[in-house]
Amino acid sequence: MQTNEREFRQCTEFLTEHDDFLVVSHIQPDGDAVSSTLAVGWLLSCLGKNYVMVNEGPIPRRMAYLWESEQIIDLSVTPLDHKYKHVIAVDCADFSRVGKTREYFAEDAQILNIDHHPTNDGYGTTNLIVPHAAATVEILFDLIRVLELQMNKEIATAIYTGLLTDTGGFRYASTTPKVMEIASKLLEYGVDGPGLSELLLEQMTLPQLRLLTRALNQLVISEDGKISWVTIDDEDMRLTGAIHEDLEGIVNYPRNIQGVEVGLLFKVIHENAVKVSLRSNGKVDVAEIAQNFGGGGHVRAAGARIEGTLEDIISRVVEQVNLQL
Amino acid sequence: MQTNEREFRQCTEFLTEHDDFLVVSHIQPDGDAVSSTLAVGWLLSCLGKNYVMVNEGPIPRRMAYLWESEQIIDLSVTPLDHKYKHVIAVDCADFSRVGKTREYFAEDAQILNIDHHPTNDGYGTTNLIVPHAAATVEILFDLIRVLELQMNKEIATAIYTGLLTDTGGFRYASTTPKVMEIASKLLEYGVDGPGLSELLLEQMTLPQLRLLTRALNQLVISEDGKISWVTIDDEDMRLTGAIHEDLEGIVNYPRNIQGVEVGLLFKVIHENAVKVSLRSNGKVDVAEIAQNFGGGGHVRAAGARIEGTLEDIISRVVEQVNLQL
Repeated sequence: MQTNEREFRQCTEFLTEHDDFLVVSHIQPDGDAVSSTLAVGWLLSCLGKNYVMVNEGPIPRRMAYLWESEQIIDLSVTPLDHKYKHVIAVDCADFSRVGKTREYFAEDAQILNIDHHPTNDGYGTTNLIVPHAAATVEILFDLIRVLELQMNKEIATAIYTGLLTDTGGFRYASTTPKVMEIASKLLEYGVDGPGLSELLLEQMTLPQLRLLTRALNQLVISEDGKISWVTIDDEDMRLTGAIHEDLEGIVNYPRNIQGVEVGLLFKVIHENAVKVSLRSNGKVDVAEIAQNFGGGGHVRAAGARIEGTLEDIISRVVEQVNLQL
Repeated sequence: MQTNEREFRQCTEFLTEHDDFLVVSHIQPDGDAVSSTLAVGWLLSCLGKNYVMVNEGPIPRRMAYLWESEQIIDLSVTPLDHKYKHVIAVDCADFSRVGKTREYFAEDAQILNIDHHPTNDGYGTTNLIVPHAAATVEILFDLIRVLELQMNKEIATAIYTGLLTDTGGFRYASTTPKVMEIASKLLEYGVDGPGLSELLLEQMTLPQLRLLTRALNQLVISEDGKISWVTIDDEDMRLTGAIHEDLEGIVNYPRNIQGVEVGLLFKVIHENAVKVSLRSNGKVDVAEIAQNFGGGGHVRAAGARIEGTLEDIISRVVEQVNLQL
């Protein structure tokens, strides 16, 4: 935090000097996006400020337990009555991630950009970017301390939620000593950490488990055991009653097989287009492979939408992975 | 720790006043048992004491990375040359859990019993039992501090391993603020927490995943959606090439379905005997049900070996669960 002292000061100035804020996070919000939105809303209310929290679309149903989550306006359902001169964007790696919320940014809007993605280009008029933070809520935890606000169980629960989801339950490489120290403090506020883990990381709906089962039945592993993949098509979705978000996590099964370097999930979009998700154990840079197909991502997790037949796309992607093995 | 001051003092007296120790843990050792054994060995070596670390059988192959784990003698392979007058038993909830290691206890042996199981009856001549500790390694972490020993990365890795496995990756109800605080400190010693999570909690062998797939194909859910179960027989084991320890974790899949209160795994032992594993979300006390069938366990996790045909046993167990719903 010492190294960011200036950014934190500018951030607190932005919050204390203005009023009537629009708080936005990224499209298809995840745990960190939703929790960061709520944390900013909470600290604004502590500062006695007016604000609205919005997102382009709905927040995941699973996060309805979060304090005041029903206050996040789904702009696809409820439009706003005016544009805002002061915007706070959280967890948005680049400006396009704010989606249609930008329709409510005044032309001369000042934007406070709070984010932890290393690729964030600082699109705000004020920026608080902490690339070594595991989640945007980690930055907000520090901000709450800087503002000397007294946390409560509700806001601690939101912050724990963001940490838990962005570190895969304290399992990703981003799990630093500081993350665990913050988690410890949040539990002291009475957060039900085990309950949140169960709800957010372990619980599956029956359609979701049926979809996983169908995917596992079709699991393929390369002869050398280094690449493994599953495929999912419309029939799989229809017969199991699964929805799009149920695809999440399935690609980890091929990736987690002992000896496998890259796990893949091929999701048929229509007869001539496939979405591929790539997961690597670190040896192969799957971002590079995804980029070759017009997609993007990180070294260990990337994706692309590719035109062509399933069979053709599988062989092309597997070939590219093999080049790096 | 304050409340246990006397126990900690007696424990350090036991360690400092004697020499030539036998360090034992429970049969079929898990992560906490292995790590606790190694942690005690390490602190004895720091104190300049002679000791041997033993177990009735082998330690899990997955834990071979642990510092000096190859020094834990598998008594089923290598007998000892004398009996020991000073025994340290770690993570053994009752005396029978030490298994055949007791063959090497001198008749007048003094036993130091270090454990975190609330049901531990204090079978030692000296006892350090901390029922609110998430794992025995948590007690040993405190003991190392009391002894003012300087921890290193290797021993921190062992302690992290015990915490990780006994809390299901910081997910069980035992995950207290203190657990997270200790984890934070251990990461500061350079422990590769994410790597350990991957190795111990995420990685699966191909036979293990094939077995899971076969089990999920046979998943049944009760009409009211509150009980779900899978069955595994010899053919499943044979066709997938899975081994006994691959069964671990499978019962969580039926249990983790949204709405399910009790998940069950029926493992056919032979045509007239079945081992049932029961997992509850807390509403149903599965220990009570297991006891009715001659087994035992905890409120949320229990097991029993039952004589009878698979079909008959399924209906009897499901009936018992239904009585509590």
